[in-house]
Amino acid sequence: MAARKTSVLLFFFMFLALSSAFPRNKNKYKPCKHLVLFFHDIIYNGKNAANATSAIVAAPQGANLTILAPQFHFGNIAVFDDPITLDNNLHSKPVGRAQGMYIYDTKNTFTAWLGFSFALNSTDYQGSINFIGYDPILIKTRDISVVGGTGDFFMHRGIATINTDAYEGEVYFRLKVDIKFYECW
Amino acid sequence: MAARKTSVLLFFFMFLALSSAFPRNKNKYKPCKHLVLFFHDIIYNGKNAANATSAIVAAPQGANLTILAPQFHFGNIAVFDDPITLDNNLHSKPVGRAQGMYIYDTKNTFTAWLGFSFALNSTDYQGSINFIGYDPILIKTRDISVVGGTGDFFMHRGIATINTDAYEGEVYFRLKVDIKFYECW
Amino acid sequence: MAARKTSVLLFFFMFLALSSAFPRNKNKYKPCKHLVLFFHDIIYNGKNAANATSAIVAAPQGANLTILAPQFHFGNIAVFDDPITLDNNLHSKPVGRAQGMYIYDTKNTFTAWLGFSFALNSTDYQGSINFIGYDPILIKTRDISVVGGTGDFFMHRGIATINTDAYEGEVYFRLKVDIKFYECW
Repeated sequence: MAARKTSVLLFFFMFLALSSAFPRNKNKYKPCKHLVLFFHDIIYNGKNAANATSAIVAAPQGANLTILAPQFHFGNIAVFDDPITLDNNLHSKPVGRAQGMYIYDTKNTFTAWLGFSFALNSTDYQGSINFIGYDPILIKTRDISVVGGTGDFFMHRGIATINTDAYEGEVYFRLKVDIKFYECW
Repeated sequence: MAARKTSVLLFFFMFLALSSAFPRNKNKYKPCKHLVLFFHDIIYNGKNAANATSAIVAAPQGANLTILAPQFHFGNIAVFDDPITLDNNLHSKPVGRAQGMYIYDTKNTFTAWLGFSFALNSTDYQGSINFIGYDPILIKTRDISVVGGTGDFFMHRGIATINTDAYEGEVYFRLKVDIKFYECW
Repeated sequence: MAARKTSVLLFFFMFLALSSAFPRNKNKYKPCKHLVLFFHDIIYNGKNAANATSAIVAAPQGANLTILAPQFHFGNIAVFDDPITLDNNLHSKPVGRAQGMYIYDTKNTFTAWLGFSFALNSTDYQGSINFIGYDPILIKTRDISVVGGTGDFFMHRGIATINTDAYEGEVYFRLKVDIKFYECW
């Protein structure tokens, strides 16, 4: 029995040692607030002005502003004003707008750099959430930083996990955003 | 007398209850530092190169770089280098520069997304303050995030309340910025 | 002897007093994590498409996208995807990519506004670091804000001191980045 107890304890301490050796400490913390939201981006392609929610506004030499640049769209800056919904349906009643920009920033694959805000205006939430981060688009889930907030998200910080939930060609894509706040006020 | 004391206490606790039920907890906290500053933006319109402090550098297809785009200027990116003053007079001695960009990002009203810094260089303050946020221009006061700082504002975080103090057509506008730091170091 | 002890104590308290009077409190804090990295930027000039790691994608009226704008490049936005190395050799094995944008934002000298991320992918570090800040390029060392991180840099904040370690004309420059995290998780 004593031997068994010892081995259980040993296992327990080994487990602790392994946990603390694990470099990503993300799982050690519980979020103080948690939101899951969707936003929907329809890129202007020269023909869909009525529906489009984003537009290419900058591009490198030789590229134009209605077709994404070749070479993985390197250098394109798109400005967006996308509806935010509680579920994955583009036609659900929006609870706010996702506004800001994304930049395509790799020459040999697809990655983006994001700077944007969620402006939420629903019965549940009133306020803004500000995001900054590197987005390796082709990876299933990507983490970016929540760097601040206002209103109900006053001074909050956290991590947003982004997932490309659906897309159609290069015109429509839908992002699922799992926002975990670790610093609430 | 005892009854009166009880009712006062009751009122007191009701007040506490109401305070904590209020969803915006902004008022619970006292800033650890507080600054009020003004900055002045003169947009380049093709004729005012000498005076202009900002320029449109990106715009969607069909728009140009000296006239703000139609449809509420959606997609315009302006880069600015604006003087910061202690009062609302454009000609007061600047205490620093506001530098960065704003993006017009709504198709059916005026809103902006801001990414900029205050670089302060006065006897009172030496250092930079970094701002990110969603700015619904037509609302009287708007809150954005102070996401960091350097020098005298080392590691600071807070909220900046922006107010369009004055404007002239689409060429000049003056912003009053009430900066409340809630995290000082 | 007693007098000497007193004067030593007096000196000690004077020192304390001076320390707390010093407005920049940066030196009071010890970083909880410290990294020194280099990144290498090769600006596209119309001829170096194979080697270039950044491109001008936006510029004010009259400027073009392969030559930096006159008047101190005011208004140019460059998007970059630069290799990060552990030493100052451009040809060392990269440990990650620096991705985002810089904006030239002064009419009468050279300054930039930076919004970018380090995406690190080495045996030592896996994760991203997000930076925002004002960069007065001509000053030897400049501080910007580390506003967040993911992976091994989950929720971190700090200060990055940037130093232009080398440059060649207006095509190549190398930045040394001394990252001091003061908030680790």
